[in-house]
Amino acid sequence: MECRNALLEVHGDMEKALQILKERGLLKAEKKAHRTTTEGLIEAYIHTGGCIGAMVEVNCETDFVARTDEFRELAHHLAMQVAAIPPKFISKEEVPEGADIEPQTACLLLQPYIKDPDKTVQDIITETIAKVGENIKVSRFARFELGR
Amino acid sequence: MECRNALLEVHGDMEKALQILKERGLLKAEKKAHRTTTEGLIEAYIHTGGCIGAMVEVNCETDFVARTDEFRELAHHLAMQVAAIPPKFISKEEVPEGADIEPQTACLLLQPYIKDPDKTVQDIITETIAKVGENIKVSRFARFELGR
Repeated sequence: MECRNALLEVHGDMEKALQILKERGLLKAEKKAHRTTTEGLIEAYIHTGGCIGAMVEVNCETDFVARTDEFRELAHHLAMQVAAIPPKFISKEEVPEGADIEPQTACLLLQPYIKDPDKTVQDIITETIAKVGENIKVSRFARFELGR
Repeated sequence: MECRNALLEVHGDMEKALQILKERGLLKAEKKAHRTTTEGLIEAYIHTGGCIGAMVEVNCETDFVARTDEFRELAHHLAMQVAAIPPKFISKEEVPEGADIEPQTACLLLQPYIKDPDKTVQDIITETIAKVGENIKVSRFARFELGR
């Protein structure tokens, strides 16, 4: 109903309608940002040949959401992301003050998303929050590269 | 030829022959213990449901051995082992002096092997060293348990 209203409001201006829907989704996601996340998934990704491996813990609010395809897919893509572009931290907040690093690549959430570099990793998490209706957080990651 | 000689030496005493073969294998494995291991595999194991995940780096001497079924199987079983019984260290040598821990369960290599508790994890590594003819080392592991 909310979707339909958004479309009606703009009288057929599809682009504007989509923008409104996107903003509402993001707004909803923002409202969920402080809700506790104790459920979720551990997911791993081994790059072809076994020379790089990544493991992530992604949390949501309920076991129900943890089992949805959307959440599983997000966890899988996050593990792939960590394998592809090695992060040092999860978010900007973790970077020690005065550290000589480039937050954009060092922080997982700020990295360009490997499957769509116009978005950040935080963007795709926010999109999934809007889809599943629960707060989602990445709580930790590990990345092994053979011999390094 | 070595195998046949071992069997001939004991004139049909099969049990003794097997014991000799085993000791020779282990002796060979011991001789390889100082050889450099720069190749290998990163392997991960996610326990059913995604509530526990483990990742290991297992090294050998050549890429050729890293691709063998024996080595791949070992890496897989080591990842399962780490998921099943959480280690704190790889070997006894890593335990800080005076630490109040039980090395048997805290050290991966000293743990009873989950698929055959009469053996230790080091035993199955040693067996694989004897099979593939290269030194093998576990260089690191990570273990995530949901919410812990």
